[in-house]
Amino acid sequence: MTKQELFKLIKEKKSFLCVGLDTDAKKIPAFLSEKYENPVLEFNKAIIDATADYCVAYKPNLAFYENSGVNGLDTLDATVEYIRTNYPAHFIIADAKRGDIGNTSAMYAHAFFGNELNYDAVTVAPYMGEDSVTPFLTYAGKWVILLALTSNKGAYDFQFVRDAETGERIFEKVLKTSLNWGNDENMMYVVGATKAEMLTDIRAIVPDHFLLVPGVGAQGGSLQEVAKYGLNSSCGLLVNSSRQIIFASVAEDYAQAARTEAAKVQAEMELILTDAKLI
Amino acid sequence: MTKQELFKLIKEKKSFLCVGLDTDAKKIPAFLSEKYENPVLEFNKAIIDATADYCVAYKPNLAFYENSGVNGLDTLDATVEYIRTNYPAHFIIADAKRGDIGNTSAMYAHAFFGNELNYDAVTVAPYMGEDSVTPFLTYAGKWVILLALTSNKGAYDFQFVRDAETGERIFEKVLKTSLNWGNDENMMYVVGATKAEMLTDIRAIVPDHFLLVPGVGAQGGSLQEVAKYGLNSSCGLLVNSSRQIIFASVAEDYAQAARTEAAKVQAEMELILTDAKLI
Repeated sequence: MTKQELFKLIKEKKSFLCVGLDTDAKKIPAFLSEKYENPVLEFNKAIIDATADYCVAYKPNLAFYENSGVNGLDTLDATVEYIRTNYPAHFIIADAKRGDIGNTSAMYAHAFFGNELNYDAVTVAPYMGEDSVTPFLTYAGKWVILLALTSNKGAYDFQFVRDAETGERIFEKVLKTSLNWGNDENMMYVVGATKAEMLTDIRAIVPDHFLLVPGVGAQGGSLQEVAKYGLNSSCGLLVNSSRQIIFASVAEDYAQAARTEAAKVQAEMELILTDAKLI
Repeated sequence: MTKQELFKLIKEKKSFLCVGLDTDAKKIPAFLSEKYENPVLEFNKAIIDATADYCVAYKPNLAFYENSGVNGLDTLDATVEYIRTNYPAHFIIADAKRGDIGNTSAMYAHAFFGNELNYDAVTVAPYMGEDSVTPFLTYAGKWVILLALTSNKGAYDFQFVRDAETGERIFEKVLKTSLNWGNDENMMYVVGATKAEMLTDIRAIVPDHFLLVPGVGAQGGSLQEVAKYGLNSSCGLLVNSSRQIIFASVAEDYAQAARTEAAKVQAEMELILTDAKLI
């Protein structure tokens, strides 16, 4: 998907919501396990059907599927296929945080972009530098979403370290350095919503890039703050919400509850996009 | 496996060799594809049988299995099971470079340590800090192998940045900071052999920890240099070689060639351990 196509989708849906499919088998409604052979897949399908009107992207978190071994990966594949078949316009992000030396990253890139399974983007960790990231950039229409400033407490351990030479913080250095590897047509950045006040500094370096923003909802970030500092002329934001939407209810009405929650976020996003004259 | 058990294994085998199972399906001998339904598994089994006498550890690189989707993961599981069944003393490392926010890292940790599949260690990326690493430390007898200084060119992008406040380079900061998360009984560090001259600085911070050293062989690192600066009183080194051993020949004699190559490395390691009076 190109950047223009993504922006078009955002305008059509009046939403920049990404629904995180962090489907913890232990947290899904208990009745599903009694009724279905693959309760996680059933849950995902119902959540996708319930939320597709209100979001532009889905982000399965690979850990939650790897956790169940090969069966979990089967469920993941079936989930992605379900989205592709029923909602072909949606953007699909493999939240995998991969990254290794060049020949190994090339293998990961092929795993996410080279098979029939058709992700649009994969999250990549920057610690190992250029040759760990660039192999993911060789697939036309596919995206690297590079970790810059993450939403968790541990972000303060290394991401804010200031470079003695340039005065830049590591997350800023990641942004600046990676501008030499890709561009706003094939790279996005992860910026945690819990650090929205940093978005001004981040936009100074990457004004035109899309940012994937986790941390709204369960992690405590504010959508208004994120939009205030993060919006650009192509929207430039994909705001992810996982637990707040997919586990809005764990009773029989879980899908309806997820739909209501997604609709609520979409309505807020529609106002934001309208105020910004983007729709 | 405890640190003492690992050191004992090293003394028994007179080796600190780790064989990297970076099994690229496109590089294995062509005749295997004609003869076997699962040529990669067949290749791995033969390589394991051929090298087990000369190494103490195996390190499957997950990218090479994920690259083939669910079937690849099946092959990986079967490979690990083969090692566990036939060579139960060997240390098994999942080279996965994982790391995410706390609840997600907990899922990854369970994927590697909580199922019947029995890895001893997993490689973890440090960018996201403490809560991305500590969930892996909650399994008794299991190890985190944290990326510190990697063997690739991209290592220079961020790992050598100097902290304006403390003067430490990022890889040193990762070492120091992580001393608060674990200890030399549950953490090791990745230090690339291509940066052996850095081992003196690294040993000043982590004198007692084991280091996993990739980059000897195909990537150009020197075993002598690594041993000179990296050995400690418990050996403290696992030196990985992948391509140089497993693809020593791509003809019918591939297993014998791998055995010869592993034996050569073991002989060099035996001399090193003898000289250091560790055996």
